[in-house]
Amino acid sequence: MQNNQDASHNNTVFVDFEPIGRRGPCPRDATLMECARLLGVGLAAVCGGNGTCGRCKVIPATAAAVSEPTSAEIAILSASDTTRGVRLACQCRVVADCLVTVPPDSLSTPQRTQVEGLEVIAGTDPQVVTRQVTVWPPSLHDVEGDADRVLKALEGDKPLAIDVEASRALPSVLRECEWTVQAAIRGDEVVQVSRPFTSTLGLAVDLGTTKIAAYLVDLVSGRVLAADGRMNPQIRYGEDVVSRMTHVLTSPEGARELAESVVGALNELVHDLTTEVDRSPQSIVEAVIVGNTAMHHLLLSLPIESLSRAPYVPALSRAMDVKARELGLSIAPGGYVHVLPNIAGFVGGDHVAALLAINSAESARRTLIIDIGTNTEVCLISDGHRTSASCASGPAFEGGHIRDGMRAAAGAIEHVEIRGDEVHLQTIDDAEPVGLCGSGILDTLAELHRNGIVDKMGRLSKTHPGVETTDRGKEYVLVPSASRGGKPSIGMTQGDVRQLQLAKAAIETGIQVLLANAGISAEDLDCVIVAGAFGSYIDLESAMEIGMLPTLPLERFKQVGNAAGAGAKLALSSLSRRAEAVAIARDTGYLELATDPGFMTRFVDNTYIVPFGATGGD
Amino acid sequence: MQNNQDASHNNTVFVDFEPIGRRGPCPRDATLMECARLLGVGLAAVCGGNGTCGRCKVIPATAAAVSEPTSAEIAILSASDTTRGVRLACQCRVVADCLVTVPPDSLSTPQRTQVEGLEVIAGTDPQVVTRQVTVWPPSLHDVEGDADRVLKALEGDKPLAIDVEASRALPSVLRECEWTVQAAIRGDEVVQVSRPFTSTLGLAVDLGTTKIAAYLVDLVSGRVLAADGRMNPQIRYGEDVVSRMTHVLTSPEGARELAESVVGALNELVHDLTTEVDRSPQSIVEAVIVGNTAMHHLLLSLPIESLSRAPYVPALSRAMDVKARELGLSIAPGGYVHVLPNIAGFVGGDHVAALLAINSAESARRTLIIDIGTNTEVCLISDGHRTSASCASGPAFEGGHIRDGMRAAAGAIEHVEIRGDEVHLQTIDDAEPVGLCGSGILDTLAELHRNGIVDKMGRLSKTHPGVETTDRGKEYVLVPSASRGGKPSIGMTQGDVRQLQLAKAAIETGIQVLLANAGISAEDLDCVIVAGAFGSYIDLESAMEIGMLPTLPLERFKQVGNAAGAGAKLALSSLSRRAEAVAIARDTGYLELATDPGFMTRFVDNTYIVPFGATGGD
Repeated sequence: MQNNQDASHNNTVFVDFEPIGRRGPCPRDATLMECARLLGVGLAAVCGGNGTCGRCKVIPATAAAVSEPTSAEIAILSASDTTRGVRLACQCRVVADCLVTVPPDSLSTPQRTQVEGLEVIAGTDPQVVTRQVTVWPPSLHDVEGDADRVLKALEGDKPLAIDVEASRALPSVLRECEWTVQAAIRGDEVVQVSRPFTSTLGLAVDLGTTKIAAYLVDLVSGRVLAADGRMNPQIRYGEDVVSRMTHVLTSPEGARELAESVVGALNELVHDLTTEVDRSPQSIVEAVIVGNTAMHHLLLSLPIESLSRAPYVPALSRAMDVKARELGLSIAPGGYVHVLPNIAGFVGGDHVAALLAINSAESARRTLIIDIGTNTEVCLISDGHRTSASCASGPAFEGGHIRDGMRAAAGAIEHVEIRGDEVHLQTIDDAEPVGLCGSGILDTLAELHRNGIVDKMGRLSKTHPGVETTDRGKEYVLVPSASRGGKPSIGMTQGDVRQLQLAKAAIETGIQVLLANAGISAEDLDCVIVAGAFGSYIDLESAMEIGMLPTLPLERFKQVGNAAGAGAKLALSSLSRRAEAVAIARDTGYLELATDPGFMTRFVDNTYIVPFGATGGD
Repeated sequence: MQNNQDASHNNTVFVDFEPIGRRGPCPRDATLMECARLLGVGLAAVCGGNGTCGRCKVIPATAAAVSEPTSAEIAILSASDTTRGVRLACQCRVVADCLVTVPPDSLSTPQRTQVEGLEVIAGTDPQVVTRQVTVWPPSLHDVEGDADRVLKALEGDKPLAIDVEASRALPSVLRECEWTVQAAIRGDEVVQVSRPFTSTLGLAVDLGTTKIAAYLVDLVSGRVLAADGRMNPQIRYGEDVVSRMTHVLTSPEGARELAESVVGALNELVHDLTTEVDRSPQSIVEAVIVGNTAMHHLLLSLPIESLSRAPYVPALSRAMDVKARELGLSIAPGGYVHVLPNIAGFVGGDHVAALLAINSAESARRTLIIDIGTNTEVCLISDGHRTSASCASGPAFEGGHIRDGMRAAAGAIEHVEIRGDEVHLQTIDDAEPVGLCGSGILDTLAELHRNGIVDKMGRLSKTHPGVETTDRGKEYVLVPSASRGGKPSIGMTQGDVRQLQLAKAAIETGIQVLLANAGISAEDLDCVIVAGAFGSYIDLESAMEIGMLPTLPLERFKQVGNAAGAGAKLALSSLSRRAEAVAIARDTGYLELATDPGFMTRFVDNTYIVPFGATGGD
């Protein structure tokens, strides 16, 4: 929880709504519903705040920071709610600084999570295949075991094994289906026995530090049947991977908490996706999960001691197959989770998946691939060689560590234009503005620079009429307090600009070191592919304005959306794509930026807000 | 629990000590220690019954059947004891009929459980092999994952996978052992990474309905390092497999209870065996478990609906490999349990294991193999063909359903000779006689028959001075009440004789049907192998006297002890033996006795106590 030390001195407390990422001072003794309205968090409130509809459930992290439950809450909340610390926002008053978790169902408007991405063609060689089989029923003269009967009918030259959970379910399925069943076979193992001619489903997951995107796929056709996304609930343990790893290293239950929280979210996604297409979670016989190396380790409960300090060595990089039940994932009991390989400590399976998806789509000679996030992975393909690096860009472009930053939800300012004294804003769903999401943050900085309100050193003008100095510091005001009915203004502070300078410098430096390493210049690039949730919404000219991306003709850029998710889908429905992912991970060189002798000098130079490659002294 | 309805009328209650199998009437309000003494159960009592040593822990099944805990008990019993219902026998008084579980540690003399058996030569091709490997430590210029580094060093042409639990442990082992470690490899999977040059252990288990025998084996040398046995705690859910299966079918938690109770006993054995050789349970990287089909299903939590009714079809017969952690077995987290294949519903992996062990030891042309137990498996090898059958002999020869029957523990009468009016007894450990174990039961019946005290119809003589008629019915008295200080006499009742007639008829009929099926007579047998715990202690002439075994020259018999355990050890230390077990299960014909048209006539004839094959009318 990001705390505001000034807040506790007076009748103000600091409230942090997660995972939506809205936080700020609120009046002591206000209801959490009032705090949510003040901070622009759209909570569901069908009954108008009477405590009767039960829609505005939230979970305050500290019971002592809020009032005692009211009789309305006691009447409406279940025992299970109470155990989990659930409260009704319209009833619960805040008396001290507090982190409040908002379950997805309590939001009036769902958050935007990136599930769209590259359209890719599925393979016809899935890991799990199905076969229909009919066997004779047993008799006193034929007492062969149920599973043996089915396996013998399926076996060719190669013996088959059967998963123990599948063998537990088999006898009743065999009898219910009158001795004709479908077997789902993975390699030499029968992982599920079900009604004949049931389409088997797969699950592809892009497990991001901030967002989780999940796709339900028909394994035969490769068609995506449903897609959904939600915030990674691990956010409550820290916004970035470093703070989550610190939690694991300092709390005895940390590893379990982080694994359980992400698996809980995956199980909710599985439930929602399968409900949407009227199927059961057990219809999913295979899952592919891609994530950065930290997400990968936290999911698999691998030790993260070595990953969390130099030289940042993973416990395991290669691709892995684990029974879903070993991870607590509620799909078919015999099903597997396949986890794509990592390349290095900060270049994970999600990057491999993105390269896999782009590999299938692209073949330009010199290609730069950038996946902007809390960690930004950059890959340069040049003369047949592929080299990747990781830039510690931080969460600023995802709204983290930015005063009015928020995630992409209704009311987030996503585009900004400044013309003289006029500020033009575009918000998600055209709702009343409540904060700035990533693309809005980038636009604001670019517009401030274009209009001379921020200089190349990143200093906010002291004289521009749009810049105000209040008890909250110096800020450029986008939405004044007056036009928000007295709520605090929305703007960009001097501190925000500093965070963004560091973020863009990290990305710019990463790209430069890769280019220098390959002996080419930015102008030599035939194609720049911008992947990822943030990257697909940004204004490329804004990114060029501040020097985050090379200044190149717009037609050389491609914004491909969630390429990691597309890669996960490919690996789900095609064995040869999995092999390709292994080859990509093996053949992609990793460049550790910290080992580049010029890294620090470049980085410092790049904090200047000037075009890509230009130096501040110019 | 076997209840005595007369007992509750007066100041007598019926107490049943399990798993030792001693039961009988006791004075109401006696301490359980007094009841144990009365029934000949040797409970540990270091402090002399003051409630201070805490050695006489027992678990009454019904709290209401015993007195409230005394202050001595409250002082000495732990919270965990109290949760499990543990009481001190010297303090706890019995007020109603009660089943009392006696943990092994509370017995003054350990029970005899059969761990000795065929000496067999271990193979040199174990399933799990070890390799030593040294890798370079990582640096900023070499950030390959820990597991990847080890796997790459181990891999030849074939890629290796690593168990997820092994990969969780690997990073710390690698650093503690300064980059030189030992990998335990099973097929294409690394199942454990440990200190270099650590001998890896295996566990072979003969999981019997009544007894569990376990062997700790060095996987490299094949040497047995330690052996131990204990009663199968599932006994509290029923003495025979049918009542245990009934419990599963009628109780929602039944399957879990039975699986957990047997796994609990296995984990205790693992603990005791590894402690004995100063190693940890995690040193065991592979286990082989053999059991009858019901034990097999209950261990693996396979459904037993079909197994429990005609035509008695297993859910699964073929050999299976399951991660030990999936069964809750506390060995190396990445280790496997290999379960030998079953042949049919009542001919399980223990029989296959016995055939495997005997196969290696025997090559006589016509061999009969008998493993006497609650189910007696009989196998006839004739002219290269192997056919097995299962006889429902019941628990009488293991002391079940016999008034003074008990398991083989101190004080059990194991041999009996009757010379006129003189009765010569031999008890285990030469202790005061407290009951009859299997071999003593068989001897008694044979001696009663030899001496004309029981006729061929099984009727106890009314005129013989040794036969008394009391309120407990007609019995031949072996140890009169007078010589037991007033405790009830020990003897064989008319009811006991009836049970034994049924048991021997079942075995004799099974052998006859197999012989008839092969077109040979008993005299044609070159070799009769008597396997199993009971079979290794019995007097063969007694068995011939009552017609349970064919009348043949003694030199044609072999008593081989626990052949199933020997087979489990072979399968543990040799892959080719496992393949042989699969071939045995596949190639052994199963003869369902109930389908033989003459079965019932033969069975009724065979209840006569006459030599094998003779008819009662002779």
